[in-house]
Amino acid sequence: MPKPNVRDQIINASLATLHSKGFNATSVQDITDAAGVPKGSFYNHFASKEILGVEVVKLYSEVSAQRFLQPLQDPALAPLARIEHYFRGLVQGNVEHEFLCGCLLGNFSTELAAQSPMIRDQLEQAFRDWSAVLAKAIAQAQQDGSVPATEPAAELADAIINAWQGAVARSKAAHSRAPLDLFMKTLMTKLLK
Amino acid sequence: MPKPNVRDQIINASLATLHSKGFNATSVQDITDAAGVPKGSFYNHFASKEILGVEVVKLYSEVSAQRFLQPLQDPALAPLARIEHYFRGLVQGNVEHEFLCGCLLGNFSTELAAQSPMIRDQLEQAFRDWSAVLAKAIAQAQQDGSVPATEPAAELADAIINAWQGAVARSKAAHSRAPLDLFMKTLMTKLLK
Repeated sequence: MPKPNVRDQIINASLATLHSKGFNATSVQDITDAAGVPKGSFYNHFASKEILGVEVVKLYSEVSAQRFLQPLQDPALAPLARIEHYFRGLVQGNVEHEFLCGCLLGNFSTELAAQSPMIRDQLEQAFRDWSAVLAKAIAQAQQDGSVPATEPAAELADAIINAWQGAVARSKAAHSRAPLDLFMKTLMTKLLK
Repeated sequence: MPKPNVRDQIINASLATLHSKGFNATSVQDITDAAGVPKGSFYNHFASKEILGVEVVKLYSEVSAQRFLQPLQDPALAPLARIEHYFRGLVQGNVEHEFLCGCLLGNFSTELAAQSPMIRDQLEQAFRDWSAVLAKAIAQAQQDGSVPATEPAAELADAIINAWQGAVARSKAAHSRAPLDLFMKTLMTKLLK
């Protein structure tokens, strides 16, 4: 039996590489180098690189939730202010990566949806979980009257998250924060009013 | 001197493969197989696969403009109807590919922006050209009063194109047209009213 901590070590160490280089540009060798384990040990822990991909999507979702989601649940802020604060945090995350990494969920969706139904399903699960948290904040903003209740909160949450993914993709192409600022200025405002 | 038509043959033949499989999952061998030319001939025509990537972005933009842009310039339709007709055509294009291919511009932006500044710059050029055509239709819709003139047409065009990219990425993850329908229902309506 392989030790579980080596498996986790590989998942943890591969996250940054898979996020910045993408799935197909990253070799098993890159991953084992990053984890500091022998290349041969990879297949003791994962039947395929695809299985690792599924685990990395799960880890990315957890890490992103821990790092960024707190403002969305901050009782000290009004619901609409929470949403704005949350997305400002995401913009800042992209600034720190100089608009080169984007969102791993968006990257893998465009790169791997056709290649791996298994990774695709995990991505969609991650989007749904994310959207559910945002929908809760939007529903609260609808309850306090700061966001109109003309559309279901769940639809607005999906629309915003999808539009965010597009803004992040464009910020990679433009190598600029302008698409993220445009998202904050135009998308957020128009979708939530 | 290599014959120019072999170079074009490789560019044309690689488009479908690069669109559906992505850049890094497609080998030079895949490309020369698709073009029906010997593998060794590739480097007579391209200094690198990256150079081919730049040419494929240009070709994709031209082909997409020819196939889809016509409704945006159709004088028989009112400007706002043109815009809706245009995006319905794009939705249909994604339906035909069963939500597996997405948009090559979005795919390459998320996959290659960090890897290739040369491809990234070509992608941003393609987005700008596309946005300029859409902005013209939006400006006409603002002139006839069907779209409010509170935001510059160029900003609305960018916001819509970026949001569209996100909807397409999500439709790949969801393997469903629902994100595209949500774009038509919520994004288009909210952004243009």
